[in-house]
Amino acid sequence: MLSGRLDVSSLKKMELLDITSHVASLLPASAGSSVLYLFNPHTTAGLTINEGADPDVRLDIIAGLSAIVPGNLPFRHAEGNSPAHIMASLIGSSLTLLIEDNRLVLGRWQKIFFCEFDGPRTRQILWRLTSSI
Amino acid sequence: MLSGRLDVSSLKKMELLDITSHVASLLPASAGSSVLYLFNPHTTAGLTINEGADPDVRLDIIAGLSAIVPGNLPFRHAEGNSPAHIMASLIGSSLTLLIEDNRLVLGRWQKIFFCEFDGPRTRQILWRLTSSI
Amino acid sequence: MLSGRLDVSSLKKMELLDITSHVASLLPASAGSSVLYLFNPHTTAGLTINEGADPDVRLDIIAGLSAIVPGNLPFRHAEGNSPAHIMASLIGSSLTLLIEDNRLVLGRWQKIFFCEFDGPRTRQILWRLTSSI
Repeated sequence: MLSGRLDVSSLKKMELLDITSHVASLLPASAGSSVLYLFNPHTTAGLTINEGADPDVRLDIIAGLSAIVPGNLPFRHAEGNSPAHIMASLIGSSLTLLIEDNRLVLGRWQKIFFCEFDGPRTRQILWRLTSSI
Repeated sequence: MLSGRLDVSSLKKMELLDITSHVASLLPASAGSSVLYLFNPHTTAGLTINEGADPDVRLDIIAGLSAIVPGNLPFRHAEGNSPAHIMASLIGSSLTLLIEDNRLVLGRWQKIFFCEFDGPRTRQILWRLTSSI
Repeated sequence: MLSGRLDVSSLKKMELLDITSHVASLLPASAGSSVLYLFNPHTTAGLTINEGADPDVRLDIIAGLSAIVPGNLPFRHAEGNSPAHIMASLIGSSLTLLIEDNRLVLGRWQKIFFCEFDGPRTRQILWRLTSSI
């Protein structure tokens, strides 16, 4: 299996970063028909797939998550970023992507996003590609 | 790897469609011990596993998601379906299923659901089966 | 593919159980570079990865989910545990973990949690390890 690491930098407290072209560039010409795993090793961030055509969608997802996860509960974790931890578990820490004919399989409007919930920070994404079959 | 496409049609704005028997019928007699990936290429829909015995559970999941994701935030995306995009990221766009002895491994009460959040629409689900080992 | 079952017992109605060391102990010395799938066959429980260093984080995640998922909607499912079913779909029923040099790949603060949403109960987690490549 091929594997590696992608580095990303967030500029805001909460942000969805479109990493689709970075992910696509990881694929070797021999990727063929395979499966690509993306794994986020951070506990206040996530990975998701959603619409990339209109940048307003990712802003609305941030606004929605901020409204859904209460910021003012009597949280115990002293770092004050419990909402970011909760968002991380709601969104999930990994993605499984299909590769066909050496290319990422995505729907017409889909892009891959790294979700920053406690930035700005420098972050990493680990990836692993299965052998082509 | 075997792969293909499942077509589903939703009849309502929001709906959980039980696709378990469709998915089971994709498996060849030689599926053996393998892994099945399901991928939803849409940005206002999702895939989940939950209770299928009582049809009320899926209605309660819809009611719960509708209550959780606010419909009246000042969303920017002009199509008006931002809550559906948010639900898509909360539920997730893919499932990884274990196959054993040519059969889907599911818990006693589990069924596989396609989640429509912005229907009614004709939708697709892509699938990929690893080789048996 | 190697596969098996992990048994866990929850002691509370809602609880995040750190199963990281149990999961790590499943790996054979020959795990090499592979992928480990964890699958939760229950419909009122889930699997997630989050911070394990401070035990308060898992309590805050429970508190957050309890606040996010309304307990007092006019749910139809007669068992009264619809919020637990909704949490199960929000958190997800499986995890995909990377193995490298025979070891689990996790971020510095990450631990693997079984999420009980309708306990206390005896629960199972199914696992499957791909061949090393």
